[in-house]
Amino acid sequence: MTELIIPEDTNIYGNVFGGRVMELIDKAAAIASLRHCRTGIVTASLDSLDFIHPIKLGNIISLFAQVNQAWGTSMEVGVKVFSEDSLTGEKVHTCTAYLTTVALGADGRPSRVVPPILCRTDEDRRRAGNAEERRVRRLERVAARRRRAAQA
Amino acid sequence: MTELIIPEDTNIYGNVFGGRVMELIDKAAAIASLRHCRTGIVTASLDSLDFIHPIKLGNIISLFAQVNQAWGTSMEVGVKVFSEDSLTGEKVHTCTAYLTTVALGADGRPSRVVPPILCRTDEDRRRAGNAEERRVRRLERVAARRRRAAQA
Amino acid sequence: MTELIIPEDTNIYGNVFGGRVMELIDKAAAIASLRHCRTGIVTASLDSLDFIHPIKLGNIISLFAQVNQAWGTSMEVGVKVFSEDSLTGEKVHTCTAYLTTVALGADGRPSRVVPPILCRTDEDRRRAGNAEERRVRRLERVAARRRRAAQA
Amino acid sequence: MTELIIPEDTNIYGNVFGGRVMELIDKAAAIASLRHCRTGIVTASLDSLDFIHPIKLGNIISLFAQVNQAWGTSMEVGVKVFSEDSLTGEKVHTCTAYLTTVALGADGRPSRVVPPILCRTDEDRRRAGNAEERRVRRLERVAARRRRAAQA
Amino acid sequence: MTELIIPEDTNIYGNVFGGRVMELIDKAAAIASLRHCRTGIVTASLDSLDFIHPIKLGNIISLFAQVNQAWGTSMEVGVKVFSEDSLTGEKVHTCTAYLTTVALGADGRPSRVVPPILCRTDEDRRRAGNAEERRVRRLERVAARRRRAAQA
Amino acid sequence: MTELIIPEDTNIYGNVFGGRVMELIDKAAAIASLRHCRTGIVTASLDSLDFIHPIKLGNIISLFAQVNQAWGTSMEVGVKVFSEDSLTGEKVHTCTAYLTTVALGADGRPSRVVPPILCRTDEDRRRAGNAEERRVRRLERVAARRRRAAQA
Repeated sequence: MTELIIPEDTNIYGNVFGGRVMELIDKAAAIASLRHCRTGIVTASLDSLDFIHPIKLGNIISLFAQVNQAWGTSMEVGVKVFSEDSLTGEKVHTCTAYLTTVALGADGRPSRVVPPILCRTDEDRRRAGNAEERRVRRLERVAARRRRAAQA
Repeated sequence: MTELIIPEDTNIYGNVFGGRVMELIDKAAAIASLRHCRTGIVTASLDSLDFIHPIKLGNIISLFAQVNQAWGTSMEVGVKVFSEDSLTGEKVHTCTAYLTTVALGADGRPSRVVPPILCRTDEDRRRAGNAEERRVRRLERVAARRRRAAQA
Repeated sequence: MTELIIPEDTNIYGNVFGGRVMELIDKAAAIASLRHCRTGIVTASLDSLDFIHPIKLGNIISLFAQVNQAWGTSMEVGVKVFSEDSLTGEKVHTCTAYLTTVALGADGRPSRVVPPILCRTDEDRRRAGNAEERRVRRLERVAARRRRAAQA
Repeated sequence: MTELIIPEDTNIYGNVFGGRVMELIDKAAAIASLRHCRTGIVTASLDSLDFIHPIKLGNIISLFAQVNQAWGTSMEVGVKVFSEDSLTGEKVHTCTAYLTTVALGADGRPSRVVPPILCRTDEDRRRAGNAEERRVRRLERVAARRRRAAQA
Repeated sequence: MTELIIPEDTNIYGNVFGGRVMELIDKAAAIASLRHCRTGIVTASLDSLDFIHPIKLGNIISLFAQVNQAWGTSMEVGVKVFSEDSLTGEKVHTCTAYLTTVALGADGRPSRVVPPILCRTDEDRRRAGNAEERRVRRLERVAARRRRAAQA
Repeated sequence: MTELIIPEDTNIYGNVFGGRVMELIDKAAAIASLRHCRTGIVTASLDSLDFIHPIKLGNIISLFAQVNQAWGTSMEVGVKVFSEDSLTGEKVHTCTAYLTTVALGADGRPSRVVPPILCRTDEDRRRAGNAEERRVRRLERVAARRRRAAQA
């Protein structure tokens, strides 16, 4: 479990840019993946992302990242983002993101098999199961894109 | 149509971080939205995103952003990302992203109605139609999340 | 307890600059202080700092910050820094820093009293006691500087 | 033709620093040169530059860069900068810059001949002609500097 | 006289980007102007600039800025840039830039008269005289641009 | 003697972060060390640091760094920081820092002997003497830490 906490100071219109949050999400996912497979990694995809609450100037952002499931050379990482009002301490759920990352071998290609996820608790098994369901939809998405590309 | 071109120089392992690309996508979408509605905007969501090709050190990144459709205070923006080898000129499609952005009134709330999209060509109508389909899936996604949150 | 994890990519000579680590230490101390007193804060001092092990390119840096003791408008924060080899997972202790921070009132002055530290465990009491000893030396240091300034 | 669009957020006194604009001009010129000669390049000179209108906080900056003429291993690139009020859409001409860039061979020296510019339109020929006139003044400038250095 | 020293670590192709140097030049000119007129300032123009020697990775860059002459609300600042090999100590002259900056009143407009330059030495008088000659050319440049704009 | 001048523009609560000042101190110490020993260096320690006056938004920061004494492969560098109000010109002493830096050989290890400090003036001798006293306390500090580590 990776936690990354940042006191946010970006300030146009008092909202933190969505792109800044996406960058932090990718960083947290990269650290969690690195710690799981101990080899170079690259982000392959990001599932849909809804910003439930905006992040305001001066907020403290916390990100929790965890590898949910692994398949061959790829992993799914879930990242939960919270935004904390630094003066009141109130913490709200900003968004949850699911990314897939791929382990790279010494040749810079996805030739390295990722260690399996050990599910010790029911919560771990629930996460791994949900990851499998999301994976089915991801594979359908990629297949549909390839069909469209082949038709064009 | 917004184009943003960046000679990329991030260099760990020779790949540009996915999070850096996400940040540029959000910036391009923000400019296209600003130009459409001429008021402050905020990113509300990002649809799933697949990185088809990695972006390598020294590549030139081009982003094309366009507002596809508008509904009340929100818009869908499509962003196409290309990566160009600066030495050979070869250009590959890196990814396509769909974001929704929301127009903000002077009070910083989504109180401002976005001008409608004028579809002049068949291509414009096709884009707007596809945006409507994606919107249906987005609303289902939000409804499902709210159901889960209510159960928890 | 605040944890801040950063995959470090600064790369001249393969060592992370000491100044970059100091900046992260100050950030971690600021977040821990903010969370303790829930008001604007400013760093007043940093105790001596020894870099026991250098931080290498590609290391993951973890910082743990905790408020050890509070006196009137000021607090002592301890920050422990670890550096983790991202490929082997080996983690070494880089340095420990003690900072004092001051709570600011709405007027931007140190007019705001900090809540006392609740010592629940023996470990908490040990930390608070050590903080008191360091405080004695800090006050001596400031008094010596004022004497020198008065003589000059 | 290279376009680079940036929503500007630098904010001291509400004006964007001239140095920030110069940096973007150099970046745009580098991309246009790279695309013309497909080899490493370095900036050799910048002609005089007048900031006609200041760029304000929140403006969208657009830069258009084009290689005007080539001589041996060097090129002239013209960069036109516009500043757009993001709320009204009003666009003003900020400045025009002329830079010379030099193509580098694999040895990092200006050993690589740049492809000639193909003038297809009268506009292209006018640009190339003006570039030749500016080049005469540049060579005079360099000769005068060398004379002064030899005298000193 | 303002000195700004930076150990340069930008590293693509081993050369520091010209745009990075231009940004430092503008910063040094801004500090020298601020110190002369003690009010907000903005950069109005930059005279032609030739990069005599490239700046290499790891070089130490020194910039010396001085206000040469003042006219009403504007000043000319000369900035000399040197690049020092950090290992051998060899120092070469990279470029000299002349900028004009304008003093701003509380209303953000050039309503504030700049104090005159006190020429104490022959060197000061030489600098001020050269600044007057450069000013004549600058005014011709601006007049020529206005004629072209009026014709277009 | 190294001077580094920065117009500071960091702006949350109108104070410059302590961590930003620490980063500049480390940079100034690195340049002074590099210029003394002309080889790669790394920061080994920082003595206690008191921020006497806060640095406000828009202040000009000046840092003066000087190598005070050398022992084998290590040096002590003193860095004095001043903050100047850019509108009134008033300059206050912000803090003084003492760092030790270590010269690295081509193997990246502290195998390179640093040239001795030449004390030409009484002031130089006073600085070198004070550096010796601070060194005694530093060695005690390190010995105490090693004893604690051995006990744990």
